[in-house]
Parts: sequence; C-alpha cells; structure tokens
Amino acid sequence: MKIKLLDGTIKEFATPLTVEAIAKELSTSLGKKVVGARINDCQIVDKNFLIQEDITLDLITPSHPDYRLFLNHTLAFLILASVQKISPDTKLGTVSYVPDEKEFRATFLSEPRFTKDDLNKITTTLNKLRKEKITTFAYDKPQIFREIFQNQPFQLAQAEKMWTETGHVHGYQMGETKIVGNQPLLLTIPPLAQFELQQLTGAYWENNAKQPMLQQIHGMIGLSTEDLAQEKAVLQSKREADHRILNQNLEIFGFDPLIGAGLPLWLPNGTIIKEEIKKYLLEKEWEYDYTMVQTPLIGTVGLYKTSGHWDHYRDGMFQPFKSGKESGEEFVLRPMNCPHHIAVYKQNIHSYKDLPIRLAEHALQYRYESSGSLTGLERVRAMELTDSHIFVRPDQVAQEFKNIYQLIQEILKTFDIEVSYLSFSTRDPQDKEKYFPDDKMWNEAEHNMEEVLKELNLNYQKVPGEAAFYGPKLDIQIKTPQNHEITVSTIQLDFLLPRKFDVTYIDKDQTLKHPIMIHRGLIGTYERFIATLLEQTKGVLPLWLAPRQVEIIPVGDAGETYANEVAKLLKQNHIRAHVDTRDERLSWKIREAQTHKIPYQIVLGNKESDTKTITYRRYGSENQVTLPTTEFLELLKTQIKQKK
Amino acid sequence: MKIKLLDGTIKEFATPLTVEAIAKELSTSLGKKVVGARINDCQIVDKNFLIQEDITLDLITPSHPDYRLFLNHTLAFLILASVQKISPDTKLGTVSYVPDEKEFRATFLSEPRFTKDDLNKITTTLNKLRKEKITTFAYDKPQIFREIFQNQPFQLAQAEKMWTETGHVHGYQMGETKIVGNQPLLLTIPPLAQFELQQLTGAYWENNAKQPMLQQIHGMIGLSTEDLAQEKAVLQSKREADHRILNQNLEIFGFDPLIGAGLPLWLPNGTIIKEEIKKYLLEKEWEYDYTMVQTPLIGTVGLYKTSGHWDHYRDGMFQPFKSGKESGEEFVLRPMNCPHHIAVYKQNIHSYKDLPIRLAEHALQYRYESSGSLTGLERVRAMELTDSHIFVRPDQVAQEFKNIYQLIQEILKTFDIEVSYLSFSTRDPQDKEKYFPDDKMWNEAEHNMEEVLKELNLNYQKVPGEAAFYGPKLDIQIKTPQNHEITVSTIQLDFLLPRKFDVTYIDKDQTLKHPIMIHRGLIGTYERFIATLLEQTKGVLPLWLAPRQVEIIPVGDAGETYANEVAKLLKQNHIRAHVDTRDERLSWKIREAQTHKIPYQIVLGNKESDTKTITYRRYGSENQVTLPTTEFLELLKTQIKQKK
Repeated sequence: MKIKLLDGTIKEFATPLTVEAIAKELSTSLGKKVVGARINDCQIVDKNFLIQEDITLDLITPSHPDYRLFLNHTLAFLILASVQKISPDTKLGTVSYVPDEKEFRATFLSEPRFTKDDLNKITTTLNKLRKEKITTFAYDKPQIFREIFQNQPFQLAQAEKMWTETGHVHGYQMGETKIVGNQPLLLTIPPLAQFELQQLTGAYWENNAKQPMLQQIHGMIGLSTEDLAQEKAVLQSKREADHRILNQNLEIFGFDPLIGAGLPLWLPNGTIIKEEIKKYLLEKEWEYDYTMVQTPLIGTVGLYKTSGHWDHYRDGMFQPFKSGKESGEEFVLRPMNCPHHIAVYKQNIHSYKDLPIRLAEHALQYRYESSGSLTGLERVRAMELTDSHIFVRPDQVAQEFKNIYQLIQEILKTFDIEVSYLSFSTRDPQDKEKYFPDDKMWNEAEHNMEEVLKELNLNYQKVPGEAAFYGPKLDIQIKTPQNHEITVSTIQLDFLLPRKFDVTYIDKDQTLKHPIMIHRGLIGTYERFIATLLEQTKGVLPLWLAPRQVEIIPVGDAGETYANEVAKLLKQNHIRAHVDTRDERLSWKIREAQTHKIPYQIVLGNKESDTKTITYRRYGSENQVTLPTTEFLELLKTQIKQKK
Repeated sequence: MKIKLLDGTIKEFATPLTVEAIAKELSTSLGKKVVGARINDCQIVDKNFLIQEDITLDLITPSHPDYRLFLNHTLAFLILASVQKISPDTKLGTVSYVPDEKEFRATFLSEPRFTKDDLNKITTTLNKLRKEKITTFAYDKPQIFREIFQNQPFQLAQAEKMWTETGHVHGYQMGETKIVGNQPLLLTIPPLAQFELQQLTGAYWENNAKQPMLQQIHGMIGLSTEDLAQEKAVLQSKREADHRILNQNLEIFGFDPLIGAGLPLWLPNGTIIKEEIKKYLLEKEWEYDYTMVQTPLIGTVGLYKTSGHWDHYRDGMFQPFKSGKESGEEFVLRPMNCPHHIAVYKQNIHSYKDLPIRLAEHALQYRYESSGSLTGLERVRAMELTDSHIFVRPDQVAQEFKNIYQLIQEILKTFDIEVSYLSFSTRDPQDKEKYFPDDKMWNEAEHNMEEVLKELNLNYQKVPGEAAFYGPKLDIQIKTPQNHEITVSTIQLDFLLPRKFDVTYIDKDQTLKHPIMIHRGLIGTYERFIATLLEQTKGVLPLWLAPRQVEIIPVGDAGETYANEVAKLLKQNHIRAHVDTRDERLSWKIREAQTHKIPYQIVLGNKESDTKTITYRRYGSENQVTLPTTEFLELLKTQIKQKK
C-alpha cells in the first residue's frame, strides 16, 4: 500500500501495519512519540489503528495540534475509571472534548449522586490510576458485548448502534472500565500535565430531554502548567466577551428542544434584568407622553395582506394556522406590531387636536430565522420589541422626530452605549417591486426626513435601497464587542400604511386626512439588547440591573442571625440580597460571589452583629469597607436610583 | 285567502289586500291604529304591505311590543332626512334599531363631517320634518334605480343586492331622502314622543374594516316622556352591570375583525388598569418569595404530547403550524404554561435544600373557544394568566398550600371580592381515560389535599370528576354581578407531570426524587378578572386603578395656566391627570367627567390660582372641597397607596 505523508512524499509499505509500526519504520524516535494519526485529513485514530489501504497520513505526536484531543479524551476516560473505582455500580456515559470551551467532559450515572465535594476525591483516585494501562477491545459477536455490557445500559446502547452501522464493536478499557467508541485515546498515559476538574453539572443522555439525566464532570488539562494557565487566559477573555458563555455562570436565559430552537426561556436572573430595563423605559415613556397598549400576538392572514407584510415579509414569518378544527379563518404569529397599533387607533375617531398619538408596546413578536443563524439571545425566533407607532399631522413630523431622537439619546447614554454611525436608509427608485410606486410620496418622505437630520446637525450615511417597504428610516447602529454591527434604535416614516388601512383624523376644516405614522424602536428587542449589554459589560452589570445585588456571607451563629436581619431589611427595600448559608469555607463563598459577579459581598460576623454595621467589598475592588447598616442601605438606594 | 288571527280565529278575504285594508275590515278603529304587522310570527312589514296568500297575521298598533321597532326606525329615518336637508350631498347609509341597547342608529357619510355640536341642529331640523309624509317606493328595472341612486353609493349597493336576490327594489322616501330596505317604518308620523340624540360615532359600512367609515348617530325614543325615562332607567341599570356596555364609555378593550374574534386589544385605559393590578400582584409575589420567569408563547407539539395536553385538551387548542416553509417541526400556541415552567426548572440541577422553588409568570396563552361562546373580556381566545408552578418536597405541601391560600385571601380582599364557595375537585375513579390510572397516586394526592383543607378549617364542597387530569384541585368560586359563576383562583396538586417530564431534585440521601408540583392561579386571567371588577364596581374603579385619576377643568386664562402647572406636578408624581381645555361649557365638562367616572374633578379659576389651592369634587359626591394643592397631592398619594 502507498502512504502519502504530509510533506508530499509517498512511501510504499508491504503489509497492513498499525500507525505505530509505520511511524517506527519512518524513524525510531517518531515511533516512540507517535500517539495516533489523522487519516485523509479527516478521521483521527489511535496508534493501534491498522492501516490497510492507500491513504494520506498525518502522524500525531505531542507537538501536533490534535494531541490535545487525545490528552483530553484520556483524562475524561480516567475520570470515568476513577468514578467507577469509587462507586463500582456507576453506569458509564461518554468522554468528549469541546475545543471551543477548551474543556473535556465525562458523563455517568451513579446512585448516590456525586457532589461537588467529591471532585477532590476523584482527582486523588485519578492520580493513582496513571500507572495503569489503557488497551483497546473489539467484539464481533452481539452475544459477547450484550453479556459484557448487561449492566452498562449506555455502553450497550452505543455498542448496538455501532454494531448496526459497522458490524463490529470496539472501544477502550482499563481494568473494569470499558467504553465503546471511536474517540481516540492515548494508549500510554503520559506524565499528566496540570489538570483541573472544574464543574459538576447535569446532561441528558444524547442531549435528549426525554432521556435520563446523567452527571457530567467538566475540566481542563494543559500540555504543561504554563500551557494550562495560558489556555485558561485565552478561554477567559473569550468567555468574558461572549454572552452565551457568560450566560453559563449568570443563568440569564436557556433553551429547550421540546419548546423549540431560537425560543428563549427567560430564567429568573434574565427576567429581573429584562423587567428592570422595562421599568426604566416605561418611566421614560411616561415622561415623554407615550400611551401604552397591549395587543394580541397573532392576527389573521388578511391583516398582513392588507399591511403588505404578506407580500414583502412572508419568508420571515412562521407558517399560518387555523383556530379550531372546523374554523376556516387563518392566523399567523405577528412578525411586526404596526397593524395591531393601527387597529387600536381605529377604535376611535380622532381630531387633529388629539395628535400626536403615541401608542407604545413592549411587544412580543415571532420571526422565522433559519436554524443556522440562531445565536444565543442575539438572533432568536421570539422577541420582545420596544415598539411604538406615532400618528402625527404633517406639521408635527419634525418636532416629533426630534423628541424621539432625544429620548433615544438619553436612553443609550444611561446604558453607556456608544453609537457607531447613523444610517439614513432611502428607497432604490428602480426597485418598483419592493417599494410602493408613488414617487411623490417617497420624495416627500425622504425629503422631510433629510431636512430634520440636517436641522439636528447629525452626521449620517445615506444608504439607498435599504428603506422599509413603507418608507425611509434612520437606523442607529452600534458595534458589539464581538464586532457584529446591529441596529439598536430606529425611526421610520410611513406614508403608506395609513392609506392602506384608511387611518384618518378629522382636520380643522372637518375633512378626513391620513396621519403620518412614525415607527419607533427604542432599544430594539430586549433579547438582542441584553446580549449586547452582557458582552459590553463582560457580565458585570451595574447595580440596578444585577439580578443578585448583595451576597451576604455570615460567619458564626451571631453572624447568621444578623445576616437574616439585614436580608429582611434589604428585601423590604426591594434590594435583591441572598444569604449564603452553605456549609463551605468563607474564601470559597467569596470566590463564588466573584464568579457570579455580585456587586456587593458583605461578610457579617460577631463584630458587625454587635455594632450593627456591615463590612462590604464591591465587585472588582479589593477594599473592604465597614459602615453602619442604615448607611449601607442608603448607599445602595442612591446608587440604584442613579443607575450606577 | 285565509288569514289566521292571533286569537286563533280564521277569516276569509276575497282579494289580495294591504295590511291596513285587512285591519279596516276587522274594525274601523283597528284600521286607524294599525301601523304594520308581523306575518307568520316572523317577518315584520308596514301597513302598505300586500297580503296575497294564506298567513297568520299579528296586527301591530301602538300598544304592541313591536311598535317600538317602527318608532325607532322612523326616527332614524328622520335623522337621515334632516342630515340631508342640512348637507344635501350627504351619502345616506342605513337605519337600525338595537333592542339590547334600546337605541336607534342612523349612518351616513358627509363632508365636512358632522360634529357633536351639530346634534342640536339636527334635532331642530327633525322637529320641522314631522309634518312631511313618508311613502314607499318600488322599482323593477335596474336602469331606473341605477339612475336614481347614482350619487348614493350605499343605497345603490343595497339596491343591487336586493335586485339580485328578489328581482325588485323597494324602500322608503320623504322628499329627496330615499333609503332602500325592508326595515318597517311608520307611514304616518305620529306626534313624536320624547326622543334624544345621544352620540355621534363612527361605523364601518357593513361592519367591515375594509369599507369606508361612516358617521353614526345614536339615540333613544320613548312612547311618552315617562316611557323614555323608564327605558333609560332600565338601560342604565343594565349598562351599569355589563362590562361590555360599561366599556363603551370607559374604553378599556376593543376587538378588530382583521385581528380576530376573541382576541382583545387592551386600549390605553385597559392597559393602565391591567398594569396597575400587575404591579400590585408582583409586589405581593415578591413578598411571598416567588421567582418570576418569562417563557415563549409556543411549544412543539411534542411538548404537549409529553405533558398529556395533546390527548386531554386538544379541542381547547388552536391548530398546529410549522415555523419556516421548509421546516418540519410543528408548533402550537400554548394553552397552558406548566410545560414551560418545567423546562425552566430543568435548566438546573436542584437540591432538596433549594425547594420550594416558586416559578411565576403572568403568562399569555391561547385557547380555542367557539365563536358563539365569546363574551367581551369574560370569554376570550387570548388571555394572560396569573400563573405559578411551585416545586415542593412531600413534607412541604401542607405549608405551601397554606401560604398560597393566605396570599389569595389577601389579594381578593384588596379587590373586595367575595368568595361564593370553595370547590374541592377530585377524580372520578371510574374514568380511566381522563385520569391517569394510578389509584395510589390519586388517593395520596386527594388525601393530602383534604387534610390541609380540614386543618385550615375551610368549608368546601367536594366535587368528584372535576379534577384536572393530573391531580385534585381547590377552586375558589365567585359569582359575578351578571350571576355567572367563575373560578377566580385555583390551587392544584400534581404528582403526574413531574414524572412525565422526569423532573427531579437530589434528596438528602443523594438519590433523585420527583418533586410535587402545585399549579396556582392567583386571580385567574386578567381578562376575566377585569371584566368581573368592572361589573362589580359598575365601572367606578378605585383611585389606584382609575385610568384617569384627576380631570382638571380650568376656568379663564389664569385658570388654564394654573391647571397646566398642577397637571405637571401631578405627572411628576405619577398621578394620571388630564386638563380639559375643550371649548365647552363648564357644566358640560363636569358631566363628561362624570360619564367617564373620573375619581377627582378639580375646577381651577382665578381664586385657586391666586391662593395655590384646588377645589375638588369626588366622583359620586356633591361636596366641593378646597385645599392647598400640596395637601391635595398628599391626599391622592395616600389614597393610591392604600388602594382605596
């Protein structure tokens, strides 16, 4: 057979050989160092793998990038072996390596369950196992592996699957510990470089919520102590700027396959953040004389045919459905809220004196996005838009535009959000299909809008062909820390929908006129905005938004009594505090509070209890400050009010 | 031909005769009094109608109940004639009588539009028209009526329709005023008894939002002055206790056919009421240590198959739909939120120490109800449930049940809601299809629940066969002022869903156990609760819930400047005030504020402006009170805080 090496040379070998044997033939030292190979730039195999045909061969030694895969798999395997040593009835799951997380994982099911406290014990056991040997096994008769795995349901399931697909079953073993699979392992355990077992979580077998939940140990291993430190640093900076990873500690949102991809669950922490932001926005909208409404999440298909969304936006919509089995009417989840607000407006006759009418809703809507494009909270299929539709007379457009722009500026400032640029989107006059062919209307709308932009002295980029199908718009663009450009706020003029829906007001001369409609998005959707906020702050939210604002760590009995007293006082004052009564060391509790980025950690012991004081440490600072509890309360209240 | 009279006698008449001629033959006085007839207990016709075949005849005279129909139609017709006299280009619409509202209606389209101020002018014109004659017309050639109605598009549309259906076109006329239709009129205008034109609104032609909006005058007419007064009194008491009628003045909610039946729009006033109630409930839920979450409005069909709703509740669900055109997964609008809260719980591993976990959501959901059963806000297809699912250990059920019951009691008391009775719903042990066949589980759940009820010393009615498919429940029943019995709050034990979804916690002994789930409805849905509240209070909401809390009526220029100052102060203090600057008389403005049931009316003139005081009148009281503005503000704040 002919073996093509990575440098392009082709070598001829007489008989089928293992990877290790081929390496040895190439050089003795290579034969000693080789741990496996990548075959045809695709499959990765261990050094015992038998090569039987012409292939391209990339030998893997400890200096090869793929070596990490072997190392991580091996460590995960050693965890399973250790767990089984400690608790012989353990049902073994799988070993895996997640390069994005730089993390190995081992899953298993054991009664009683392991707890975090057991991680040290596992480490100790694992260190003892280093001297053992890992070997491969292969079975080609079902009765054999069914017998062997009769008490290992997950291995049996894997084996049955492999049997069906390939006609044989293979894997790795160390003493009693056997796992079925292709994930390559090191067959000689090296002096293990620095590793850490970091987390104990739950994971469904095969990621399927209908399957049993296994326990899962996560950890990291480096090529050396320095390498591990460096890997951790790289990971850390990545984690700090990706809201999906930040979410693992902060528990803001989640997904569930039975509910559906791209449909976020707002977990308790996320709900607090979202509702605090909403409270603030509602306060601003009250100040700026908006009128809140709430409208249904669905509408008839006819509604969207009238609005034009059915023609212009259908690919972004979920599919229609009927109400009852016998009912003929077709509904669709709303992708936009404009027609609903028009329906509210039309419930009454309006006079020119009533305008502007500013209908606002923090409105749920559903848009279809391909599964490939879904990204955490940043791109979802269900979202809540900070939406408004403002009905104005022609003489009110400019002033209203200014009001909206001022409101948006004020809000973005509160969140320290830096605007990247303003995009003034106009129509493509050639595109008669997307844009309603009424040049007079378009020219008027675009001209009106540009006049206001000039009057406000704004720097903007004119982008022809990017207007909505109903009118020109100003998009306020920002860059996320992940370098995604997104629209955070938008102001859109619309001369079209009021005509399509025959929206009117009675003018001074008693005739009916169409108002102009302004579509306004304040901070876009909560989903995308909170994703951006998390990335921008690296998860260190300001006090007013932090789901848990104060972590109270009591020391001793007096400390605990006093801690509960302080917690009660804070709760009465609507401050979100938590007493950490877990049976752990003080330093561990402080580290935990750091991990979850709690703004204030307060430690309460005898001294504090006696003097009715608290000692706090602000997140990110090393200073400890002691002050009377009542003063601490005032400090918190002031900072929350100032949105710091 | 044979005519059967109401008393059973049958009379023979030789030739086709009009209703009037038949009446004359029966008696001269009857001939004078008759205005029309009801034929075969079905069709109602005027006295000129020609009888040509054997029928049952019920002659209508002024003492007949159906006389009101004639009288109301005639007055509505006279309105059209008056409107056309005032504005000859008016396009005439229809005349109608709505017995439930005791109201006649006339629709028309006129440029310039009529305003409320014109109602007096119309009344004056109408009084002059009494002496004119109403006659009938009939055409049997299209070219004739097309010519005649060429400038009356709505009459032409009616005529074309009648032509297609019957081959001729008839109607009523008075001078130039002609309307096509079957609605019977009085052909001799009687001395018109007391009538009132009450409202000027808008109405779509044919109730179709795609058609033009006409103006519509509403009014009432009585058989005599006393009769009108009595009709108004009856109507008033009916209006006072029907939330749909109360809504006409209070503008809480609306519907739109293009959005869909049973899908309420919360108008600005309704949104305020709903959000104020929500704020209060959230405050209570914070106090009782609930954790708020927010979850998607849809789920996969698989989710509801797992939960069992697909089998047990499918008729109450909207039909399923797909996400994208090419996607295979099927979704459905959620009819319940339990599976979503289970998904939130399952995002984490929980220890026995973490329980109880109280997940709460004011959660939107969609249920299919037949169109016939939809009733204002009371029965709808889209609703927001004050929902919670509480995960407890078996040893926590009793205490948690007590907490919930106490919370519910506290809340119902705030709203002065009187409980009618408690319904303890258990399973029907014979019904193996609805109820999961696990007698041990059911016995335990029912026994547990009854123990707690006894311990709390509650009076309850045991209702076998009314339990949910997953467990027994306690429903808190109230009677609405319309005498509908509804469930306002509910507490349900569930041993089943935690098993179906494999919901677990790690117990003290490190083994996995299923928690018990308690489903809790606080005040049911906002929709039904607010309907009840409106009916119970006859729309006189307590200050904290009133959409507009203060109506400020300025007198003179100084009054107006001061009014704006007071309004600003109130707005800063989050009090919902409005300055009535309309160009109307003081007494009219005061009456308007009464109609809208505004809790505080304040009149501000020179005196108040000079002394920085306000003079207020509380709704329902005749007393006027003057006090310093700052004191008034404190009064309002205190009452709002006390939820009075």
